[in-house]
Amino acid sequence: MRKAVYAGTFDPITNGHLDIIERSLSLFDEIHVVIFYNPYKKTAFSLEERLEMIRQATSHLKGVVVDSSDDLAVEYARKIGASALVRGLRATQDYQYESQLAYTNQYLAEDIETVFLMTRLSQMFISSSSVKEIASHKGDVSALVPAYVNEKIVNKYGK
Amino acid sequence: MRKAVYAGTFDPITNGHLDIIERSLSLFDEIHVVIFYNPYKKTAFSLEERLEMIRQATSHLKGVVVDSSDDLAVEYARKIGASALVRGLRATQDYQYESQLAYTNQYLAEDIETVFLMTRLSQMFISSSSVKEIASHKGDVSALVPAYVNEKIVNKYGK
Amino acid sequence: MRKAVYAGTFDPITNGHLDIIERSLSLFDEIHVVIFYNPYKKTAFSLEERLEMIRQATSHLKGVVVDSSDDLAVEYARKIGASALVRGLRATQDYQYESQLAYTNQYLAEDIETVFLMTRLSQMFISSSSVKEIASHKGDVSALVPAYVNEKIVNKYGK
Amino acid sequence: MRKAVYAGTFDPITNGHLDIIERSLSLFDEIHVVIFYNPYKKTAFSLEERLEMIRQATSHLKGVVVDSSDDLAVEYARKIGASALVRGLRATQDYQYESQLAYTNQYLAEDIETVFLMTRLSQMFISSSSVKEIASHKGDVSALVPAYVNEKIVNKYGK
Amino acid sequence: MRKAVYAGTFDPITNGHLDIIERSLSLFDEIHVVIFYNPYKKTAFSLEERLEMIRQATSHLKGVVVDSSDDLAVEYARKIGASALVRGLRATQDYQYESQLAYTNQYLAEDIETVFLMTRLSQMFISSSSVKEIASHKGDVSALVPAYVNEKIVNKYGK
Amino acid sequence: MRKAVYAGTFDPITNGHLDIIERSLSLFDEIHVVIFYNPYKKTAFSLEERLEMIRQATSHLKGVVVDSSDDLAVEYARKIGASALVRGLRATQDYQYESQLAYTNQYLAEDIETVFLMTRLSQMFISSSSVKEIASHKGDVSALVPAYVNEKIVNKYGK
Repeated sequence: MRKAVYAGTFDPITNGHLDIIERSLSLFDEIHVVIFYNPYKKTAFSLEERLEMIRQATSHLKGVVVDSSDDLAVEYARKIGASALVRGLRATQDYQYESQLAYTNQYLAEDIETVFLMTRLSQMFISSSSVKEIASHKGDVSALVPAYVNEKIVNKYGK
Repeated sequence: MRKAVYAGTFDPITNGHLDIIERSLSLFDEIHVVIFYNPYKKTAFSLEERLEMIRQATSHLKGVVVDSSDDLAVEYARKIGASALVRGLRATQDYQYESQLAYTNQYLAEDIETVFLMTRLSQMFISSSSVKEIASHKGDVSALVPAYVNEKIVNKYGK
Repeated sequence: MRKAVYAGTFDPITNGHLDIIERSLSLFDEIHVVIFYNPYKKTAFSLEERLEMIRQATSHLKGVVVDSSDDLAVEYARKIGASALVRGLRATQDYQYESQLAYTNQYLAEDIETVFLMTRLSQMFISSSSVKEIASHKGDVSALVPAYVNEKIVNKYGK
Repeated sequence: MRKAVYAGTFDPITNGHLDIIERSLSLFDEIHVVIFYNPYKKTAFSLEERLEMIRQATSHLKGVVVDSSDDLAVEYARKIGASALVRGLRATQDYQYESQLAYTNQYLAEDIETVFLMTRLSQMFISSSSVKEIASHKGDVSALVPAYVNEKIVNKYGK
Repeated sequence: MRKAVYAGTFDPITNGHLDIIERSLSLFDEIHVVIFYNPYKKTAFSLEERLEMIRQATSHLKGVVVDSSDDLAVEYARKIGASALVRGLRATQDYQYESQLAYTNQYLAEDIETVFLMTRLSQMFISSSSVKEIASHKGDVSALVPAYVNEKIVNKYGK
Repeated sequence: MRKAVYAGTFDPITNGHLDIIERSLSLFDEIHVVIFYNPYKKTAFSLEERLEMIRQATSHLKGVVVDSSDDLAVEYARKIGASALVRGLRATQDYQYESQLAYTNQYLAEDIETVFLMTRLSQMFISSSSVKEIASHKGDVSALVPAYVNEKIVNKYGK
């Protein structure tokens, strides 16, 4: 069984993240969607809220495990027997940060591959930050996030 | 009458911003220079100070409206009947962030164009941040900002 | 009357080019779509074929002038009284080349602005080269180019 | 059985390519290394020579199929039942070209994923072009290419 | 005597920094490694701790001066008679920020050159931030930082 | 005595190149400006013409040696006892190509440093190609190249 880890802050999970999860499932038998604890990063939603949003958003998918951890991502991958870390790339922004992260992880664990998928064009501009930015001005983000997340956002930021 | 919106934090307005405003006036009849309220962004100068600096810096120009708003930029554009958002690009840094923002705005409002102008080479390294960084070490920024802004900076950071 | 020049090789014109032309018309009263003669560039279609493809593709639009020239683009702009050169940017590739070109043109003619529009996301991967590459393997490009261009491509590369 | 296609010109195959092939085998059961025929690209080695170099370089690996084709890569993938195209990324150069190619292939075949692996740091500067450039000045490339390829290069360019 | 300034936050100094210092010594007779005071930047280690880590890490090298200052870097360079600022570039991340900084310094002091060296490939992914990120998850960073720094990190973050 | 090599095609030498040469002389005692023979690259000016243009353009400078070679640049550097290769970087375009080249040279010769200087902002858009492009449309390039080069260009392309 081929397993992969999809790490992130997911504050909140977007349709862009969901697309990467769905497409990863055509490459791997099991995807662990994992929030890695970072004490220095302030988030808009609590760890529990973010985990619940991922669970709701992926409940229709087979082979998804939702989890959190304070390990290094590569340590977590090793423990569950995963061969890869999955990352989404948007043409606009992520590449330089992502390549440095991938090389850091290659240094930490030669046996764990970082596998990049390109975010779908129609979702390329979506990020958790842009969703929160739009929501904070009461813009409509219902086309950018799963339905359950949209509810939570409307609760939090108003409509 | 063709109108455009030039949004920013302008903390403070620099000669780079001013150059974009002046050149936009060769393309549009009216430029609205607008500070959009962002509660999460700490600024060195207050909203009122920043608006006053823009007013002083553009007082010699015809067709400039200075304003602030807590709408989304595209909403503001629609309300005043503007067909475009104007953005300045510096060859060094802004492109990836700017392209994501442009696509977000295209998603939010298909009818509002984002129009990019390239910052003049001689001003390409100027940003509000670099101005504040230099000023905080008591460096001379008088060639980087309008005269009125320079006064305020000398008042704030010393000389 | 505000005029702009949209320069290119258009070998052949694609839906990406057409999108830029249509959106430019919301900013300018007249767009001159101009093929500038470059003796060193080999093209798949002749100058006359390329001009005809542009004419056919833009025949439904008001305010489009199709032309060719062996001037520098900024010289051509000056002669027709245009205030701007319009360029399309794709998030993926064009920025560095385009910024150098814009600065060259700024050096050659301070009074002519280069105005950038971002290619629509759904068309971001389209280029004349990718169209020809797909066509040369008999792939279907009918969704990437205007109908008349598709006919010419099928004639040339087979189906 | 999970299959993937690794397309390229391989003029000649380098240790960088070989690294991507080996690592792909930890993700897929079978990797088809395929030279896609491009009549417009001049190569230093003939198609037959390039195929033979790949065969020799991968003879120690299980699950590698070496082939050539004049289909589009996604068509080839479909015919053999592959779910993915594998691409190597070097931090220095490939990203913009690769992202456009990936989006073109996503347009051509929604069901075939493009999967990116990052070239190992120690091999990041290796490309078929740099190998040929060094060899043409009689520099030693034995650490950059498989042994059999090095022989062919010494035969061709001298030593 | 040719002198150069190598400015940074060094929070903490890494093997990547050390590599730049060592290689600079093949170009200059004296390298001043200087921490410039930035009141807005929170650091993990105090100024005194960071200076001591640099001193320990460079104690085997001839021609290194360790210092701190609240001047602008170019002012400091002028005062000590240095002709250049040395900067390390990693292929992955630094270029756009660094080019803007270089142009700012060129504006501030035409006579002080900014000289870039490329970080060694094997250390390209190392940054003070990634070291702290790994350490905060109790990962081993002993191959990324000088021995003395590693001790301090183990003291601080545990093991 | 510190020596450096400045390699290029110089087809023709521009004011951008000249700026790098002049500034290198504040860092090194002797700069060898060298055209490395590349049989695959078609040039507008012959080797002899290009060497003569460099000689004329640098005749006022002390410490410049003009040469050509068919060695690898690092081999040439070693033979003359140079410790560095000097390269100019323009913020717009060169970085990715240049970083790959630098790593190739680091692989070929660990003891030869590649030293990058940033092209002056006002000359950032100048390249040999853009000069030839402008000249081929009979544009004025007298501000972009040394006087002697301008003469040769006017002879070649007309005025």
